[in-house]
Amino acid sequence: MKGAEVLLRVLARNGVHACFMNPGTSEMHFVSVLDAVPEMRPVLALFEGVATGAADGYGRMTGRPAATLLHLGPGLANGIANLHNARRAGTPLVNVVGDHATYHKRFDAPLESDIASLARPVSGWYRSTGRTATIARDAEEAVRAALGAPACVATLVLPADVSWLDADPASIGARGGAGAAGPAAVPGTQLAPPDEARLAAVARAIDSGAPAAIVLGGLSLGERGIAAATRVAARTGAKLFAEPFPGRMERGAGVPPIERLGYFGEFVQAQLGDIAHLVLVGARAPVSPFAYPDKPSDLVPRGCEVRVLAGPSEDSAAALEALADLLGADASAKAAAEEVFGSPPARPDPPSGPLNPHSFAAAIGAVLPENAVISDEAITSGFLLPGATAGAARHDLLTLSGNAIGQGLPLATGAAVACPDRPVLALEADGSAMYTIQALWTQAREGLDVTTVILDNGSYGILNIELGRVGAEAGGPVARSMLDLSHPLTDFVALSESMGVPATRAHTAEDLTEALRRSFAEDGPHLVQAILR
Amino acid sequence: MKGAEVLLRVLARNGVHACFMNPGTSEMHFVSVLDAVPEMRPVLALFEGVATGAADGYGRMTGRPAATLLHLGPGLANGIANLHNARRAGTPLVNVVGDHATYHKRFDAPLESDIASLARPVSGWYRSTGRTATIARDAEEAVRAALGAPACVATLVLPADVSWLDADPASIGARGGAGAAGPAAVPGTQLAPPDEARLAAVARAIDSGAPAAIVLGGLSLGERGIAAATRVAARTGAKLFAEPFPGRMERGAGVPPIERLGYFGEFVQAQLGDIAHLVLVGARAPVSPFAYPDKPSDLVPRGCEVRVLAGPSEDSAAALEALADLLGADASAKAAAEEVFGSPPARPDPPSGPLNPHSFAAAIGAVLPENAVISDEAITSGFLLPGATAGAARHDLLTLSGNAIGQGLPLATGAAVACPDRPVLALEADGSAMYTIQALWTQAREGLDVTTVILDNGSYGILNIELGRVGAEAGGPVARSMLDLSHPLTDFVALSESMGVPATRAHTAEDLTEALRRSFAEDGPHLVQAILR
Repeated sequence: MKGAEVLLRVLARNGVHACFMNPGTSEMHFVSVLDAVPEMRPVLALFEGVATGAADGYGRMTGRPAATLLHLGPGLANGIANLHNARRAGTPLVNVVGDHATYHKRFDAPLESDIASLARPVSGWYRSTGRTATIARDAEEAVRAALGAPACVATLVLPADVSWLDADPASIGARGGAGAAGPAAVPGTQLAPPDEARLAAVARAIDSGAPAAIVLGGLSLGERGIAAATRVAARTGAKLFAEPFPGRMERGAGVPPIERLGYFGEFVQAQLGDIAHLVLVGARAPVSPFAYPDKPSDLVPRGCEVRVLAGPSEDSAAALEALADLLGADASAKAAAEEVFGSPPARPDPPSGPLNPHSFAAAIGAVLPENAVISDEAITSGFLLPGATAGAARHDLLTLSGNAIGQGLPLATGAAVACPDRPVLALEADGSAMYTIQALWTQAREGLDVTTVILDNGSYGILNIELGRVGAEAGGPVARSMLDLSHPLTDFVALSESMGVPATRAHTAEDLTEALRRSFAEDGPHLVQAILR
Repeated sequence: MKGAEVLLRVLARNGVHACFMNPGTSEMHFVSVLDAVPEMRPVLALFEGVATGAADGYGRMTGRPAATLLHLGPGLANGIANLHNARRAGTPLVNVVGDHATYHKRFDAPLESDIASLARPVSGWYRSTGRTATIARDAEEAVRAALGAPACVATLVLPADVSWLDADPASIGARGGAGAAGPAAVPGTQLAPPDEARLAAVARAIDSGAPAAIVLGGLSLGERGIAAATRVAARTGAKLFAEPFPGRMERGAGVPPIERLGYFGEFVQAQLGDIAHLVLVGARAPVSPFAYPDKPSDLVPRGCEVRVLAGPSEDSAAALEALADLLGADASAKAAAEEVFGSPPARPDPPSGPLNPHSFAAAIGAVLPENAVISDEAITSGFLLPGATAGAARHDLLTLSGNAIGQGLPLATGAAVACPDRPVLALEADGSAMYTIQALWTQAREGLDVTTVILDNGSYGILNIELGRVGAEAGGPVARSMLDLSHPLTDFVALSESMGVPATRAHTAEDLTEALRRSFAEDGPHLVQAILR
């Protein structure tokens, strides 16, 4: 059995059942054994940033890693931006990078490069598997690392000869020899229980009468963590926030509508106010995404004490439940939510009239189907979405965790592979869409049930705001032209259809709601170009 | 004067007159001062791989660096594959990467990453400029490094605060204060003269009567080097070859038609035969691009002595001329070419009938206009191009120097910015085209005179060959489907027009020649989808 087949079997045996790939010559043995391991679903991407972003979306939705298959250093490099986002989201991911045969590297062939140097900034674990004899062990350890606490991107470099040489079947052992039917050798992420001393200290601080805020992040943003945090807030008056860019967050009808911290520092400062205690639950202390002249980088209010209730390796939802119990927060989740947030937010009515950020957000809130997954890279056009979708049908929200744009369409692609029975909605800014637009082809090829809305404002809208905020002079016409996407305007309908995804254009709120309803009613991918210019 | 303006002025003063960019918030001060430095032409790309590939094309055609402007680690990562190609081509390039403000980095904001680790594998020179006081010096040194011997990618990291703080005008000094009118402080690449001892040894070896071959690479592939090498070959009987993937090579009518070494090792072995001496002139010893079971990596014939006449830091064209003189090769270049290659190759007649690799290549050879620049990423469909264009109108050929696909369209874009009076022709495989298809938008926006031919065979053709060559079993339907681009087929006409580039489809050789003639007759970008399925 070739090394590549051992690798595939060990991955599949340990619950890795999808591989998002863009292979080359050095990966041909991996490709050639795909037929022998039907438990692994291979998904072809036309660009590596699509493969890595899709693996991120898959991992966020399943809690188990997908694999990638990338072609040497340059193929890896093309996937790094979305691996950066996966790293920030804490997604489990087994990042397989093909390499030249071990004995071939010294010849410095054209595609030779320093893969380790490229991979390390985005990898929580890195190994180049040097011998076919160890490939089973290395594959299992990659899955184990990806599913560690915290989960991470585990990069496994696979030289061509390690892939093509025959492995001793004994090296597989229990790791993969039994096929995919048995229980996985590598368990899911095992989070540490809450720390009692920190629990007690947080409870005292938050119950001291001084104003406090709790920021939820990571795995605390499921319904369980949000409900427990809401009970704490109802009991103590602490403010509740979600981190600004959650990897995944449960939202919509029945989930307490906790607000995310804002993008701009001024907004975060207004949200936090004069708190004396800040409690972090799977979240990091708030910082400004960028430095700006004469504005703070650190957004923790002056004099505020910061306490970590649960770090990324701890069970943050359990910690919130333990905190609620310790504080005697005995209201039901529903009663607590009403006390903290008032009446549950309503689903918006379908909007009418011109299309703008307000009617766009209302349309999403109004027609979102039950159990949807939203991949949100709407950027400036999406600033009203949180309010408009708080009372929408129940859904999962995936956000731009590492702020590296070009995530939204790949992420939706991977989420749809992970969740074939759930509608997936990608809300995508026009500028960001063009980074990884090739994702549409994979959606068409795989028949994925993804609805993409392109928010077309004909500009890098965020940069028009930032050009002023950084204190730069407004710039003359040359500077402004660098933020302008309207010469030429991209015809996203033609672009989408060129890759096999049916598309339509929406000029009014009615157009958009109608197009969304049609798309949700039909299987397969669809795209709507929403004109917001 | 802000640091960013000092940077722009020093770059422009030293002959950097184009900047291919995809900026973000941390680069807004650079953008805001563009109006103040009209000697710098900013060119916006929708994806960083387009920006870096275009800077490579610009540098290959001018011999002077263009700048890039990329957004932190993830923006750099998106550009790395084409920086890898630029590195292999020996292109001068000033790669400017924006970074967080120096004091902001410790907060590990979402876009923070290890830029040095990402940049080093593709950078011959790397510096993060830590203070506005040194930005003028750092910018000049970046240009000096880019134009070193050999030329390289010089990466200059520019923190946001270094960009926005005021620089002491005295720090600029002669580096940029005088504007762009004066002579550049940094001269062009200064290559070392030929080494006399090596010249003599090479002359003895090549004139020993034992079979010899000379491989030309790098800057020896201009007409001057090729002509001198041809004189040497006429005098000694040595075989002549070009390296397999030249950064730039002069070809067509009047240039001796030297053959490139092939892609596959078996072909190279047949080309070299049983030579006893191999002379490298700005080229590296031939190696297989990949390892294959039971095939050699090292393609130097067994027992053959390898001698370097000129390395990448030496003047390889001058070395060839000196070698010709030393050997008393006194035939004229024209007479020598006739002796070595026979009658000059003819321009092919315009082909008719079905479109296939043969008629495609003939069409290019037949209609190529005078003084064109060809960016060749045709991959498998282009294997007959060298023969068909040897007798075409005089042109420059730019090839896939680092084998990282997705180079062709960006490279053509940058070449067109560099050479506004020359027609540029991009020959592009369908699979490779989709890596950096966003280049079309920049071509439309800038009105560049680029003709793109998409060679549509509906597959990763090279991988269908490689799947067999690596010794992988042919693979079943799943394996083969990973190399198949026909489900769905991409409509490149719609795709091109969606980004503002007029396009047409060619089903026959007549269609293609007619479409090419029309495109060459009209200004601005055009695309032809050539159906080879």
